[in-house]
Amino acid sequence: MLLKIKTLDIEATDYPLVLMHKDDAKFLGVRRLGRVNIKLGDKEFVAVVDLTEKLVNKGEVGLYEYLCNKFDTKCGLNAEVTLASPPDSVHFIKKKLDGNTLAKDEINNIIEDTVENRLSDIELSAFVSAVYTRGLSNEEVINLINSMVNTGQTLNIKRKPIFDKHCIGGVPGNRTTMVVVPILGAAGLTIPKTSSRAISSAAGTTDTMEVLCDVSFHKNEIERIVDKIGCCIVWGGGVDLAIADDKLIKIRNPLGLDPESLLLASILAKKKASGSEKVVIDIPVGKNAKIKDANFARKLARNFITLGERLEMEIKCMITYGEKPIGKGIGPSLEAIDVLKVLSGDGPYDLREKSCEIAGLLFEMGGKAPRGRGKEIAEQMIDSGKALSKFRDIINEQGGNPKVKIEDLPIGSYNHTVKSEIEGRIDFMDTRMINMIARACGAPDDKGAGIFFHVEKGERVKKGQDLFTLYADKETKITNALEILDGSPIGVEKVIYDIVEGELSL
Amino acid sequence: MLLKIKTLDIEATDYPLVLMHKDDAKFLGVRRLGRVNIKLGDKEFVAVVDLTEKLVNKGEVGLYEYLCNKFDTKCGLNAEVTLASPPDSVHFIKKKLDGNTLAKDEINNIIEDTVENRLSDIELSAFVSAVYTRGLSNEEVINLINSMVNTGQTLNIKRKPIFDKHCIGGVPGNRTTMVVVPILGAAGLTIPKTSSRAISSAAGTTDTMEVLCDVSFHKNEIERIVDKIGCCIVWGGGVDLAIADDKLIKIRNPLGLDPESLLLASILAKKKASGSEKVVIDIPVGKNAKIKDANFARKLARNFITLGERLEMEIKCMITYGEKPIGKGIGPSLEAIDVLKVLSGDGPYDLREKSCEIAGLLFEMGGKAPRGRGKEIAEQMIDSGKALSKFRDIINEQGGNPKVKIEDLPIGSYNHTVKSEIEGRIDFMDTRMINMIARACGAPDDKGAGIFFHVEKGERVKKGQDLFTLYADKETKITNALEILDGSPIGVEKVIYDIVEGELSL
Repeated sequence: MLLKIKTLDIEATDYPLVLMHKDDAKFLGVRRLGRVNIKLGDKEFVAVVDLTEKLVNKGEVGLYEYLCNKFDTKCGLNAEVTLASPPDSVHFIKKKLDGNTLAKDEINNIIEDTVENRLSDIELSAFVSAVYTRGLSNEEVINLINSMVNTGQTLNIKRKPIFDKHCIGGVPGNRTTMVVVPILGAAGLTIPKTSSRAISSAAGTTDTMEVLCDVSFHKNEIERIVDKIGCCIVWGGGVDLAIADDKLIKIRNPLGLDPESLLLASILAKKKASGSEKVVIDIPVGKNAKIKDANFARKLARNFITLGERLEMEIKCMITYGEKPIGKGIGPSLEAIDVLKVLSGDGPYDLREKSCEIAGLLFEMGGKAPRGRGKEIAEQMIDSGKALSKFRDIINEQGGNPKVKIEDLPIGSYNHTVKSEIEGRIDFMDTRMINMIARACGAPDDKGAGIFFHVEKGERVKKGQDLFTLYADKETKITNALEILDGSPIGVEKVIYDIVEGELSL
Repeated sequence: MLLKIKTLDIEATDYPLVLMHKDDAKFLGVRRLGRVNIKLGDKEFVAVVDLTEKLVNKGEVGLYEYLCNKFDTKCGLNAEVTLASPPDSVHFIKKKLDGNTLAKDEINNIIEDTVENRLSDIELSAFVSAVYTRGLSNEEVINLINSMVNTGQTLNIKRKPIFDKHCIGGVPGNRTTMVVVPILGAAGLTIPKTSSRAISSAAGTTDTMEVLCDVSFHKNEIERIVDKIGCCIVWGGGVDLAIADDKLIKIRNPLGLDPESLLLASILAKKKASGSEKVVIDIPVGKNAKIKDANFARKLARNFITLGERLEMEIKCMITYGEKPIGKGIGPSLEAIDVLKVLSGDGPYDLREKSCEIAGLLFEMGGKAPRGRGKEIAEQMIDSGKALSKFRDIINEQGGNPKVKIEDLPIGSYNHTVKSEIEGRIDFMDTRMINMIARACGAPDDKGAGIFFHVEKGERVKKGQDLFTLYADKETKITNALEILDGSPIGVEKVIYDIVEGELSL
């Protein structure tokens, strides 16, 4: 049927959605979230239909602005609208829901349609649910990864072999990337590191690195930097290494669905797209970490390694303690300070240790150190000042001030220190609550906001001793954060809780 | 955070969706399709968030018009927007995805949130996918049905017991309801029949009944009619017998997901809500019917019966032949003509037979006929003219002309008759293609559009004999329908396909 185009000044979805009047849709036989083919002169595309009785009249079809721009179309022109079938990939999603194995072409089809925005939110949700309930075989995961790599950009770094590290996430302050990359770079290894921003934590590597320099670079800029100095620490979102994965994550997040096979595919597709050949994956295990259980972590590690072999990547996994934050500071600037201190041979012991373990393992994998001696070489890179110097090269290449000092970094002008009310030992540090408090202080958007810990887990404290300080740009944010502090994020263990006097009834 | 309200003149979704600027959302820590709490003075509600960089500015929150009306809110006022958690039902959906059994309260929770529009499309899609992949136990289906009944309207008919019939669907022209209801009504039984409109077929019972009288009635009007004359044939969409089911169907349809447990729940919830006590369910089996396989039909029938017992409904199922249309006409008016003819003691044999079988079984279930004698009584109701008289009562009560004659019904003014090109026997009738052609002619919206068959399956035809006639309101629709006719919807079997002359090489 011929419908007059009406431009809608909205861009709410990724896929081509058009609005039709209920009566027209009924006449055409298309239901809500069904599909129509839209023909505009010699251009043609398929769109998903939402229904209205108000925004467009009978005889009109509402096109969102980006579609009009894309097809260079104006209000009032006619479009020929006909009923269209869903893309084949919808059948393949159904096939997976039915518990069948998907062939390579079928997975390719789903991923291509995801990238080209041909699938609606409910279809992508059904795909994520299908993978969650039915799982994917190793063969399917490999095909999924290759599809993701083929539909995205790939980094072409000339310096080989390419090293990489990745953390599954969930530990506040875990900024090992910013220590490992300059250590490797200082030893002449190639590590083009792309990182993410915080989702629910107080800061991601990208948020922290951004305190020191730019992080958004295009593919060719990343290639130039890495070919020049061997390494970088940039935002992965600036280069579409696995655009299909990003689109699936948008559906997985609100549903809270983290199917193991999509987790594996997500990480490995990005590693493969950046050309990684030798990779260490850090899997923190802890009550509030992404992985709660050590047995599952070991199973996941084995899957990483097996899939890595098929993708021609050597992968080693480190299963790490995820029940406490790493470093003293939580929040972009406070974490950057920890990193600068560690690279200067000082700073929090745990951040130095963990980073040197990871860098050391990569040295051993690259044949740069004999087995069991990698960590030593990593420590030498720090103690010789070479790693710090390399870090300043990275800052320089990424447009920051290479001479930056700790005092230059912005710290929230309001602060509040919480003291211990009792004498005892630091028993636990609730990582989830630590993230919540740091976010209430303003992290990661306020770079200087966050928490600084004066004590470590296991340490003995006296009554009245400083436990931690909150930093924020506004006083109200300190107040907000203190409200959350109703339950303490760190627990002081008292040997004797209470003494009950009186006679015992035996 | 405080955001200024901006009213958006759109009503695209059922659930409360608000638009936020990407930066504000990031600051608040809410992602696309996450949730926020919106406080407007003393009113408060939770909404799902979609992101924009354009339609609303930083510092604004875009509310769709119906939300503004609902909360009597104007542009420019401030709303306090805070991060909100997803409703508990999202956890229960995840629980089902994990393969666990849902408790009564958990199912209640999902259904209540569905009815109250607290779940987004992707969440409902995950629920449908979860039920599809994990299935539901009988206990869960019973709880689901009761939740659906409790969250919708129920009919309160005083005349008992209440009879009902239902067809799973998929057979063109299968208008038995319009014959069965007056037969039962003529015998003094109570049957408050609610029907649906066509989805992919040429006409639903509602579309066909609408040729003769009104079909949209409110609950109290239906109760009044049935208490007066014992029966009705109305549109189920006019009374919210299972509003949750309707919302789930909107998600199931575009995904093409028909989980057996949702099919059972959907039908039985509506039967329960209309107070049905004795029900016959017609399960057509055929290549293009909803149920393709007789074994599955038998399993489904057993499930209907078992669940019916738990819901205090006596259910019997008829597994029927679904490989050919029922009656001569396909399309609202043409089907209404078949019905009027059958009720007049004439008309297509198959429609009369099937209707009398169903009505007869209901007579036996209601103790109105000895076992094996029900059909006889049904035939008597027709042959005595009592059923036709009851049908005219129904038309009258539903605002139509009780004296309506077959000649009064609108028939498309354009027609085209297809003749047999060969001599042979009618071998098959492709029900899917028959629906497509009838829809191309304009059915179900053009009441007079459709197909009239001059021959029946199994009948012998001569070359040049009329096979079927297409009817439409516009000539172009006939042309469109003929284009689809590339492969014929009915096949004539030729005994000998070809004779090859010449010498046989032995």
